[in-house]
Amino acid sequence: MTTPSISRYPVPKLEDLPEDIKARILEVQEKAGFIPNVFLTLAHRPAEWRAFFAYHDALMGKEGGLTKAEREMIVVATSGANGCVYCIVAHGAILRVYAKNALVADQVAANYRKADITPRQKAMLAFALKVAQNSNAIGDEDFAALREHGFTDEDIWDIGAIAAFFALSNRMANLISMRPNDEFFLLGRLPKPR
Amino acid sequence: MTTPSISRYPVPKLEDLPEDIKARILEVQEKAGFIPNVFLTLAHRPAEWRAFFAYHDALMGKEGGLTKAEREMIVVATSGANGCVYCIVAHGAILRVYAKNALVADQVAANYRKADITPRQKAMLAFALKVAQNSNAIGDEDFAALREHGFTDEDIWDIGAIAAFFALSNRMANLISMRPNDEFFLLGRLPKPR
Amino acid sequence: MTTPSISRYPVPKLEDLPEDIKARILEVQEKAGFIPNVFLTLAHRPAEWRAFFAYHDALMGKEGGLTKAEREMIVVATSGANGCVYCIVAHGAILRVYAKNALVADQVAANYRKADITPRQKAMLAFALKVAQNSNAIGDEDFAALREHGFTDEDIWDIGAIAAFFALSNRMANLISMRPNDEFFLLGRLPKPR
Amino acid sequence: MTTPSISRYPVPKLEDLPEDIKARILEVQEKAGFIPNVFLTLAHRPAEWRAFFAYHDALMGKEGGLTKAEREMIVVATSGANGCVYCIVAHGAILRVYAKNALVADQVAANYRKADITPRQKAMLAFALKVAQNSNAIGDEDFAALREHGFTDEDIWDIGAIAAFFALSNRMANLISMRPNDEFFLLGRLPKPR
Amino acid sequence: MTTPSISRYPVPKLEDLPEDIKARILEVQEKAGFIPNVFLTLAHRPAEWRAFFAYHDALMGKEGGLTKAEREMIVVATSGANGCVYCIVAHGAILRVYAKNALVADQVAANYRKADITPRQKAMLAFALKVAQNSNAIGDEDFAALREHGFTDEDIWDIGAIAAFFALSNRMANLISMRPNDEFFLLGRLPKPR
Amino acid sequence: MTTPSISRYPVPKLEDLPEDIKARILEVQEKAGFIPNVFLTLAHRPAEWRAFFAYHDALMGKEGGLTKAEREMIVVATSGANGCVYCIVAHGAILRVYAKNALVADQVAANYRKADITPRQKAMLAFALKVAQNSNAIGDEDFAALREHGFTDEDIWDIGAIAAFFALSNRMANLISMRPNDEFFLLGRLPKPR
Repeated sequence: MTTPSISRYPVPKLEDLPEDIKARILEVQEKAGFIPNVFLTLAHRPAEWRAFFAYHDALMGKEGGLTKAEREMIVVATSGANGCVYCIVAHGAILRVYAKNALVADQVAANYRKADITPRQKAMLAFALKVAQNSNAIGDEDFAALREHGFTDEDIWDIGAIAAFFALSNRMANLISMRPNDEFFLLGRLPKPR
Repeated sequence: MTTPSISRYPVPKLEDLPEDIKARILEVQEKAGFIPNVFLTLAHRPAEWRAFFAYHDALMGKEGGLTKAEREMIVVATSGANGCVYCIVAHGAILRVYAKNALVADQVAANYRKADITPRQKAMLAFALKVAQNSNAIGDEDFAALREHGFTDEDIWDIGAIAAFFALSNRMANLISMRPNDEFFLLGRLPKPR
Repeated sequence: MTTPSISRYPVPKLEDLPEDIKARILEVQEKAGFIPNVFLTLAHRPAEWRAFFAYHDALMGKEGGLTKAEREMIVVATSGANGCVYCIVAHGAILRVYAKNALVADQVAANYRKADITPRQKAMLAFALKVAQNSNAIGDEDFAALREHGFTDEDIWDIGAIAAFFALSNRMANLISMRPNDEFFLLGRLPKPR
Repeated sequence: MTTPSISRYPVPKLEDLPEDIKARILEVQEKAGFIPNVFLTLAHRPAEWRAFFAYHDALMGKEGGLTKAEREMIVVATSGANGCVYCIVAHGAILRVYAKNALVADQVAANYRKADITPRQKAMLAFALKVAQNSNAIGDEDFAALREHGFTDEDIWDIGAIAAFFALSNRMANLISMRPNDEFFLLGRLPKPR
Repeated sequence: MTTPSISRYPVPKLEDLPEDIKARILEVQEKAGFIPNVFLTLAHRPAEWRAFFAYHDALMGKEGGLTKAEREMIVVATSGANGCVYCIVAHGAILRVYAKNALVADQVAANYRKADITPRQKAMLAFALKVAQNSNAIGDEDFAALREHGFTDEDIWDIGAIAAFFALSNRMANLISMRPNDEFFLLGRLPKPR
Repeated sequence: MTTPSISRYPVPKLEDLPEDIKARILEVQEKAGFIPNVFLTLAHRPAEWRAFFAYHDALMGKEGGLTKAEREMIVVATSGANGCVYCIVAHGAILRVYAKNALVADQVAANYRKADITPRQKAMLAFALKVAQNSNAIGDEDFAALREHGFTDEDIWDIGAIAAFFALSNRMANLISMRPNDEFFLLGRLPKPR
């Protein structure tokens, strides 16, 4: 039985990677228990890898008005609209973990309007999907709708920028046929053992 | 804590349902261990319920050139295109069980082109999605493409009819905000214990 | 001169059909003066035929807040959006007969906004078309808009379910290239002789 | 009972119109037995009226490789795509008369792929619909496909120009809510009495 | 080095054209300093040429509530939506000249919402784009929105008719691959020398 | 007279920026003669700024099978599809400079099929637009089509990654209403003085 390919492009071996990239990957592996494929597949181009993860960290790891689970909801909803298997599966897993909710990721990926989320979060995802699909039509009325839910302009930048960054990320994953690790499919679905 | 509603419309109690409907539901409960919400929510209209499940059974339970897993793939792929949470989640579970594959349902729901399925199955799903989204343009060339993969005309009726039936089913679920049972989310994801 | 085919698939002869199907078809023929092709073409699959007409009858023949003409308007408008020749022509004829109006079917098939119908009926068709084309986005505001026109929640189920059933029906007709009987094209266009 | 309006805009009386316009309208009335509403509604703007009918006549009345019925098919198919009630109904009638065929107009308006027309005519309508809906993507391969059916480059100009002219015409009719005369709905549907 | 073709079709020589067409072209050449290619390429069909320019002049040269620059904005915005290189470039140049503004044409062609124009002009272009792209859905509420900005019903006819005429014009240019003159690209971009 | 805003968000002053960002901006200003607004507007978020320009430089400044002008064509074509005024205008200018061609940017922004570019470049832009608009459907056949034009797999990554990066960039510019500098509109349109 063969292992399915995780990219159309050559995937570098961990030991052949530049030190900074290798260090970050080992750190992720330590924490997650496995190396998410995005770290290895994009390392085919180290300069792009560094920019990609710097951007990712700037948006997903920062403090601000959005919770970590809300940031992942934006990723899952817009990746659903873009038909990106990697991001739906991998970020769906992270969303389940952050939200401590085994159901919400599958709901948001399929149709956020039917998900177990707040009206504020639905407004956030409506905006994110407009940035993802129809950003040329974003206008003052869209900002106003979010402000009514208490989002600040910095929060709105976060929402839009995450949708924009995953517009890039989804396209790269679709381009290279990036495959999600098998581990992600089950992650966060089972109650924590005590 | 409140239980989330499973339908916009009143949901009948099992004991109040006509005998034939109750009998079928008890049979399903016996087999599955729980009552899938579609059986209760649609029972708000018994005559439609009977037609719905008669149609479902005629298409999904029959013998023919498509495996049961392939029939469920059609459901999951077209429900993904229609943004139907209930059908993606419930039939995704059934697909995992029939295919004995914990990954394929999430792949097919997101983007069948990147799923671990055969080229024949990809051709089947391309046809099913054309029926789901653009049936007015179905023509001889679409039949020819499936025949090249060995599908008979009766198989093609099956593919098209399943896509057509779930065009109905997805719209009903979206109309009434049908909620998938929590059990479906995890079903078929864990290896069978021995 | 050859008779054009009424289906891509074999069309059973009336005398070869199961008794229950034959009986219903003879009844329709008695009433209409001819056998609408949908009764013969779908009889290629008796189990699906029974479910199809049971569903049809449950939705189109019942009592309720919608008139029979309004039910047919929903069929004609959504079939227009789906490019289904059979349903536009056959149900256009039935609409003309029920509405006692020779013009309304062609108007509704082309663009309901310009039809000789009431604002309440235009709201009904806007909802039906959203179910037909974009059911994933149906939400509370759509229900509210219909309630303002006096529709009950049961009426709304009727509207949505008819749109959903003809989502199935249109796809089947497009799949098998179902041809409308020549009789339908003229039916209901001439004033009744006295 | 009130007569429905035939335009959102004021409709001039025949006797108030400039002589050249009045003369043409009387000629049409003589021939058709009634005045098609497009002649009166567009006469609200005489200069535009003159250009409109000069263009119409240059395309629809000329000699060339397309029959008159084929020209009307292009009008009906593209007007169907544009949701223009006036043009579907009025030109549908003219198509029935020219083609001496009571069925073809309703078929072409709904879905030309299922109409009783030749493969050459289907290729013609596929091209016309691409001009109507997606003209920016017209390329050499589209010209090549028509040449294979024996169309000359002048025929192709005709096809494209008719689709382009009715892109204008459909938009004007939709803008002013132009209503087709009741006479058009039945025209060409009955066998000629002998 | 070869001169690029300005049309897929034969381009008549000025001296071979009918007198009325030649006279108009010489007049334009006198004024503009060159012959815009649309005058030569469409002259392949003199009868259509005469109707085309009669229509153009009736809409673009008349008095009314819209300024000449506003009329050109409508052309540029709708031509942008239709992907018509000729009309974007040629009418972009004319817009720059009429508006005495070197920036506005490129802005409007790309996304009118971000252009240096008034809210009234943005409402005008939103309506024009709806006529261009979705005229079947134009309704009372669209008229009401323009009236709130002070547009009269005659102004609205102008806006809609210009969008409709360039629906035709863009399709003809795309059909024949009409090439804009090199002169248009720079016209109106430089401050007038004194 | 007021200067139009270049962003919805606060724009930092050059002197307040971190040293590394300030240094890069001064270098660009030195070379271009002005500071492109993207450098100042995105500096509202320094961490994102650094990742953005690192990504930009990794894709646009590298060696490889695509010329610099070809890279800019991809930006201009996909930004046209996304309705991004900033990127069309700014990268249109850069394209004119790199291609030493005053016409090509306006052509590619409007409709690459009608641009003065090679068939190889048209294939490149067709792929880039599929990544921009429909990346979920990218498949082997798209790679094969580019390989037939001599593109290597690394070239294809470049094409796809540039389209993906500007999917992000266009969305950020639309989100914050980034305004192109006036200088860009004219840049590269005039022959170099000698």
